Amino acid sequence: MIRLSDHLDELVHEFSKLPGIGRKTAQRLAYFILKQPEASVTQLAESLINVKNKVHQCTVCGNITDDEICRICVSEKRNKLLICVVEEPTDVLAIEKTNDFSGVYHVLGGAISPLDGVTPEQLNILSLLDRIGALDSVEVILAMNPDVEGEATTLYLTRLLKSFPHVSISRIARGIPIGGDLEYSDEATLSRAMEGRVRI
Amino acid sequence: MIRLSDHLDELVHEFSKLPGIGRKTAQRLAYFILKQPEASVTQLAESLINVKNKVHQCTVCGNITDDEICRICVSEKRNKLLICVVEEPTDVLAIEKTNDFSGVYHVLGGAISPLDGVTPEQLNILSLLDRIGALDSVEVILAMNPDVEGEATTLYLTRLLKSFPHVSISRIARGIPIGGDLEYSDEATLSRAMEGRVRI
Repeated sequence: MIRLSDHLDELVHEFSKLPGIGRKTAQRLAYFILKQPEASVTQLAESLINVKNKVHQCTVCGNITDDEICRICVSEKRNKLLICVVEEPTDVLAIEKTNDFSGVYHVLGGAISPLDGVTPEQLNILSLLDRIGALDSVEVILAMNPDVEGEATTLYLTRLLKSFPHVSISRIARGIPIGGDLEYSDEATLSRAMEGRVRI
Repeated sequence: MIRLSDHLDELVHEFSKLPGIGRKTAQRLAYFILKQPEASVTQLAESLINVKNKVHQCTVCGNITDDEICRICVSEKRNKLLICVVEEPTDVLAIEKTNDFSGVYHVLGGAISPLDGVTPEQLNILSLLDRIGALDSVEVILAMNPDVEGEATTLYLTRLLKSFPHVSISRIARGIPIGGDLEYSDEATLSRAMEGRVRI
């Protein structure tokens, strides 16, 4: 096939590296860019660079922030003695959406996964221990994803945290999702739901 | 909802301006960018700028090119007396994929659409007339999309080109697509297919 423009092909190639963007979509996006005014393309390009250069990890909790300490850790309304441990900043967003949690977070930056080469040392676990060590009494909620990596991380953290007598540990419930259907739930979810039954 | 990072939100906003990218996908892309090494993000940003700054319209046919004249117009293997008129550069790619067309193209840059404010003056029509005027005898194939705008453009061009006695005009066939099904074809397609029947 004839190649019309190397620069355009290059952009198609770059776009198709993004997750969920196939070659066809990448091509559509590249032609869209070609038709946009220069100012909006520059804006997108600058925005990309800004995200890499100006977004950091919060020095307290490992969440993303433009400042040194993130907006949640800085807030005086948040209960600093209730720490919810999550894998990614997007998990923080998901929990924040519920408007139900008044504590603070600790973002690990992933989950333990030997297959992907993610060891506990690469996660923000040491900073979690430091943080907890500096507090008198604290409740830690483990909110990893209920998959193999998440379970491994939960197990690992539970063992570590058990050595702190002033820490009470819990994990978020696994069970049938609201609006879900017993009949169509998988066995694993259903046995977790039975196991985690709550007295009424 | 709490905003974790203005820069990240800005990038989500920029991504969601792209066609077919909703807010959720934009967010996934932005977090992906956050995790990429700086070099690859810079590469994407530069590639965006390059496409705007270094990709031009071919001065002969209006197709996109990194040079003054596009690779198809420059090629000596192409029949310069057979011009296929299309709306967009992507249409050129589609026809090139068939490996069946040995002529050259003329890219209008869109189709006449009063509702979207696209008038014939905004399309590469004058350059088409100049080009045809400079040739002795030429065959023009109109290959607009078979939608309202495309039909309007075909009609408009046909009227213009009829005034050149040395031009033979044709349009690509409309009918049942290969692998298609009479039963499930819409009425418009089916009546075009009947109308455009070919003696065997």
